[in-house]
Parts: sequence; structure tokens; C-alpha cells
Amino acid sequence: MKKVTEMTREELLELQKELQKQYEDFKAQGLKLDMSRGKPAAAQLDLTNGLLTALDDYHTESGLDARNYGVLDGIPEAKRLFSDLLGIPAEKIIVGGSSSLNLMYDEMMRLMLFGTQGEKPWKDVKGIKFLCPSPGYDRHFAVTEDMGIEMIPVPMSADGPDMDVVEKMAAEDEAIKGIWCVPLHSNPLGACYTDETVDRLASMKTAAKDFRIFWDNAYGVHHIYEEVTLKDIFKAAEACGNEDRILYFFSTSKITFPGAGLAIMAASVSNVAEIKKHMTVQTIGYDKLNQLRHVKYFKTADNIRAHMRKLGDALRPKFDMVLNTLEEELGGTGLASWVKPKGGYFIALDTLPGCAKATVAFAKEAGVVMTGAGATYPYKKDPKDSNIRIAPTYPTPEELDKAIHLFCLCVKMSGVNELLKQRG
Amino acid sequence: MKKVTEMTREELLELQKELQKQYEDFKAQGLKLDMSRGKPAAAQLDLTNGLLTALDDYHTESGLDARNYGVLDGIPEAKRLFSDLLGIPAEKIIVGGSSSLNLMYDEMMRLMLFGTQGEKPWKDVKGIKFLCPSPGYDRHFAVTEDMGIEMIPVPMSADGPDMDVVEKMAAEDEAIKGIWCVPLHSNPLGACYTDETVDRLASMKTAAKDFRIFWDNAYGVHHIYEEVTLKDIFKAAEACGNEDRILYFFSTSKITFPGAGLAIMAASVSNVAEIKKHMTVQTIGYDKLNQLRHVKYFKTADNIRAHMRKLGDALRPKFDMVLNTLEEELGGTGLASWVKPKGGYFIALDTLPGCAKATVAFAKEAGVVMTGAGATYPYKKDPKDSNIRIAPTYPTPEELDKAIHLFCLCVKMSGVNELLKQRG
Repeated sequence: MKKVTEMTREELLELQKELQKQYEDFKAQGLKLDMSRGKPAAAQLDLTNGLLTALDDYHTESGLDARNYGVLDGIPEAKRLFSDLLGIPAEKIIVGGSSSLNLMYDEMMRLMLFGTQGEKPWKDVKGIKFLCPSPGYDRHFAVTEDMGIEMIPVPMSADGPDMDVVEKMAAEDEAIKGIWCVPLHSNPLGACYTDETVDRLASMKTAAKDFRIFWDNAYGVHHIYEEVTLKDIFKAAEACGNEDRILYFFSTSKITFPGAGLAIMAASVSNVAEIKKHMTVQTIGYDKLNQLRHVKYFKTADNIRAHMRKLGDALRPKFDMVLNTLEEELGGTGLASWVKPKGGYFIALDTLPGCAKATVAFAKEAGVVMTGAGATYPYKKDPKDSNIRIAPTYPTPEELDKAIHLFCLCVKMSGVNELLKQRG
Repeated sequence: MKKVTEMTREELLELQKELQKQYEDFKAQGLKLDMSRGKPAAAQLDLTNGLLTALDDYHTESGLDARNYGVLDGIPEAKRLFSDLLGIPAEKIIVGGSSSLNLMYDEMMRLMLFGTQGEKPWKDVKGIKFLCPSPGYDRHFAVTEDMGIEMIPVPMSADGPDMDVVEKMAAEDEAIKGIWCVPLHSNPLGACYTDETVDRLASMKTAAKDFRIFWDNAYGVHHIYEEVTLKDIFKAAEACGNEDRILYFFSTSKITFPGAGLAIMAASVSNVAEIKKHMTVQTIGYDKLNQLRHVKYFKTADNIRAHMRKLGDALRPKFDMVLNTLEEELGGTGLASWVKPKGGYFIALDTLPGCAKATVAFAKEAGVVMTGAGATYPYKKDPKDSNIRIAPTYPTPEELDKAIHLFCLCVKMSGVNELLKQRG
């Protein structure tokens, strides 16, 4: 396709007519598809249906009755499974309920209400702020906003957040209390933090003594095109005496069942002790039968890794389809740019500035719900109105094929409209 | 036995010697028993082992895939089950995780940080206080203490808290923000709130507009000797326009599995909307497979009621054994008083003033761990040092028999010691 951005007004008007015709054809199909969330497809979930019946006994390996009360922070064999999988010492791990988001929210609540390591509660910090690498995960931003913490967007690249900006801000402003990070196959960019990024985050000077990195390694073993390794941030932070800075989160939501998996958090031994002091008041313990169910089903971390390769095989055709269609439909037009992710759950696309909202609205009108434009930015405000998150996992291949073609058409329509507006 | 409290100094010294000999015999047995917590025995849990394999399908009745993300506040059939069981309209119910304590803690967190119904957040209320009917549940007190809320003990009787005291305090002090209530078979007294108590709680004038009743109906269907009915506090509160005052909690911890049951909270439609606004940021949803598992296992509220009668049958011999032994060993001695509960999980005993700690210490030295003396009061401070919570459910009948005999002996020893001290 000719570079649309270089077309004359007449060519654009011609193209606009043509696109409009294609769009009417799509509308006539009465599509009703949802690409808004990073939900696994039923076929993915089927791969772990064995979990449903994996519980052949309710005793832990030490003989404890997992049906009864007891064990606040997870049964030892569950801790060991995650320790082996993630390379984190078991004593740093707390196995929580099914939702890592819940663990993050609760941790933020504790920091707000109680503070940490002797520093004053965050509720008492005037003008408290959090660094939000953007585009990023909308639910992280929602947690921050719910707490009344001001969000500061930080530019993201394929290597992670712009560390020059992060270092400068963290060093200068005591009210900046932390940063959200999805260090591998990030949502939505697919960014993988380099060793240098990890080192700089772990070692940087921060004005706030209780600066915290919310290290949400949600896609830590979710490789599709390349098995990327992530530098151990605990070790890096320990080396500079900053171990308390790291609050690590992980879950099996996109390994087993999103509604009923296991979530963990990991932190320094000193942080874990502090967290458990409040957690033991909050609950007597999380669902140990579900912990046991997962341990009995997977048995070893290697079996989880093998399962993730199967999942990668299941997802790759969908990602291929999206990437190929983007290339066929939008490649060379100048109307959009995107980066092929190495894993994770998303493909992020940038339209021409000012075209994201219009694109998503066109798609919706024709029956395809995308993630809301702006959702990947704090306060849902994408300053360029250009980033859109594509979530290819949930639809069937047939649905995805239709949806992504329609989406490309909508990118072109909004792009052409914008260019025409500029030409007056 | 002769009334010990009326014995002469010589008689007491004689008795002391005899008790000491019996105590040495107990110590020689090397007991190692735990009566400290209200834990179900394995034999009780066995009654619902069918739950472990009840999940023959993962679709809800509306066809939703319960393995996947979605549904914040519980699947409709789970809400309906609890609605039928408790007589609460389904739209007031939120089905949470496995722990009602967790729901209470989170609710308290929200009240602290965000406030409710437009009133200022509790964190900003100077000298904030909570009414704590005592003896009461130690974990309620722990939640209050963790939040930094001052606890005001209120006397309890078999009918509920002393309502004259509650009404006066709630009406006079704007900083009193709520009260903890276990309205049926209360922990540890076995108190059952009368209709009048419920009415007065629902209708009383409170200085704080956002006064909240934490209505922890933990033993709402846990009858042993008598099927007590509880007046509907929602209806009573509605009738006076105080519906937002009620925050209702319930769980299946002592119906199915304490580690892996279902917990719910219920509140006015307006409160539920407010809670869900924050809850939807905290989590995408709770474990729906476990909700479905419970629904498929029980099917109807009547089946739960039938199961509770079986549980009552299983518990009655243990409660009989404790009550009979108390009567045989301590009846008429003047050294202790207790009330036969109608249900629940505990028997509360009062020693002579100043004897609870010593009693529990004697028992511990001989290998039987009781709930810590004082645990049933705010800050673990029983002003009379006299209340002890007996938890008969967890030990086997043989263990319980030994433990309760030893316990009675310890009550006598500490009583005799105290009387001798008084006689100088």
C-alpha cells in the first residue's frame, strides 16, 4: 500500500470512500467480539483441566490437614514450587489467595495506613506520588488512583522505563514513593527489562527512604517467541543494601485458571515479617486446598515450564495472525507502528497522534470491543491519543481474524480522517 | 464437694495438698493437647469430604466459564444459596474468598482510608473508638487494634451486650464509630441476641452518622442444643432508616472447610455499591470454582441445614462431656461459674477473680494449651482475670476427657491458692 501519510487530499478522499464501503460491509456482518481484556481462551484453560481433579488427598507433605485452619503464608511445598520456578528463596515468599492484584492492593493499603520499616504512613505524606511507566497496566493505575496517590507517567521503551527520568525524579522528590514495573513481556508493550534497567532500579538513590518497586512479574514465564531471562532484582538490590525496596508479585492466573489460581508475593525477610504481622490479623490463612491442588498437579517447576511451552505453542498462531495482518494491512502506510513482542499477552499499536479514540470507537460501532483508548495511561489520558492495546488471546482464530481485519480498517479510517483534517 | 469458698484455712491447705498430688499424676502422663482455638475436628471435616470431588463441571448455571476471569461479587447461584440460608436478599450479598475475617478487615481498611457515605475517612477522626462487647472474639479485637482504633469494653450477658451502656455511649460520643457483634451463639459466651437487643441496636440514636455494626453471624446456623432464631437486623434497621448501619458477615468455615470454605458479606444496596467501587480495583474476582463447588455439593439451603444438624449431633457429645465434667468437678464449689450454650463453638467459664491466668498456666505446665487468659477482652486485659474460653471441638473424645479433667483441677488449684492468699 502506498504511504498514506504522503497522499494528496484527492487521494485521501478517494481512499476514505473506499474504506467507508469496506466498513459498511463489516457492519452488515453484525460482529459481536470482545478483544478488550487479556483473558485466556477456553482452549488454553482446557490444558490444565487436570487441576480440577488433582486433589486425591488433603494432607500436606508434613501431614497437615489442609482442610482445616492454619498456615498463614502458604504450605511449604507450594512455596518451594514457586521458589524453584522463580529463583526466589522460599523464606521470601508468601502464597496468598488467587489474585496477585489483591496482594498488591492490600500491600498498598498497608503502606498507606501503617507505613513501612519505621517510616511514616503514606496517608500522612503530603503530595504523595507514584511513577507510572506508560503505556502500562490499567489495573495498576486504578490501585494508585483509588488510594489517592498522584500518578506521574514515565516514558517506556522496549528495554523498560526511561531510567534517566526515573532516577532523576526518584532522587529529587521525597514524595515519590514508588514505581510500578512489569519487567517481562510488559502489559501492553511487551517490554523486557534489560540487566542495566534492573540494576539501575535496584541501586538508584531515592529521596524517599521507603521507596518501593512494585515488581509485578505477571508474565515471568509467559514466553511466546523467545525465552527471555530477567536479571534477579532481589540479588541486585541486596548488593546495594536496598533489598527492602523490592515487592515482588506473581500468579498462575495465566498459567492455570485466572479465577482460581495461586498468587504470591515475595519480599525481603524483614518486609515479610512486617507484612505477616498485619496479615495474621487480616486472615487465618488462604485456601490451602487450592495450594495443594496446584502442587499435586504440577509437582515440579520444570513441569510448569513445559506447560508454558505448550501455552506458547497455543498462543503463537494468534499472535502470528495479528502481526501478519497488521503488516499486510498497515505496513508501509505510515498510519501505525507496533513492536513484535517476545511473549506476554498483548500487542501494543500506536496510531497517528489523535487517532486512538476514533479507532476504538469505529471498531465498537462495528461490534468489536477493544481495550479503551487511553486505558494504558494514568487517569486514562494518553497525551498523544495514539496507544491501543490489542489482546489476541480470548477470541477463537476465526473471530480474531475478523476482528483484527476490522481493527486495521478502523486504524486506516481514523488515520485518513485525521490527515484530511490536517490538510484542511 | 463442699463449697470451697467457705472452707477454713486448714481445710484449704489439706485440699491444696491433695490437688497437688492429682496434678503431679497428670504431669506424669505427659499430655500434649491443644484446646486453644475453635477448630473443627477431622471427623467433622470428613462429613463434607464430598466437596473435594463435587466439581463435575466448571460452567455456572448461566453458562459462564468459572475457570476464567469475571464476576466480582459472586456467581448468582452462590448468592442465592446464602440468600435462602440467611434470609437476606441476593442483591445485598457479596461472596468473597474463604475468610470472613478477611472481609471484615478489608471493610475496616476501607472505612479507615476512604470513609463511607460521604463522611470523612476514619483515619482522620481524632480519638476514634469502637464498642467491644466482652468477653468477645479475640480476632475482632485484633483487627480494631491493628487499625489503631481505641477499644471500649461493654459488658455482655446471655441476651447480648448491655444495651443501656451501648445506647448511652453511641449517642454521646461522635468518635465511637461502631460495635462488634456475634449475635448468635457468641464467641465465647454463647449469647443469643434477643429481639429487643436487635431492635435497640438497629434503632438507637448514634452521634456518629457513619456508626457501623459489624454483625459477624459466624455461628448463625450452628445450633447444638436449641435451634435459636435471630431477628432480621436488616429489616429492623430499614424500618428506622438505618439500613446502612449494618455490615453483615458469614462464612462456611465451620460448615465445610475452615481453610477453603466460602465467606460472604451483606450490606445495604447503597453500601454494596460503595464497597464494589473499591473491590473492583482490589481484585478481578474471587475463586468462582470454589463457589461452584459449594453450590454443586449443597444444592439447597435446606441441605445445609440438614448438614448442620449432623454437625450438631457430632458436637453434642463433646459439649455434654465438658458440661458434665464441669458440673461434677466444680459444681457447688463456688470456684467457677459457666452457662450452658445453645450452640456455637465454645463454653465460657469464669473462675474466681484473679485466677484465670494461673489456671491456664497450670494447664499449660501439664501439657494442655487453653485459649490465653484475657484473650476474650480488648488488649487481652480481662479486668477481673477470670474469663476462660473452652474450645471442645478439636480434641478427640478421649483427649477432651483428659483435658477437661485436668482443666477442672487447675481451676481448683488456682482457686484454693487465691483463697489462701486472701486468708493471709
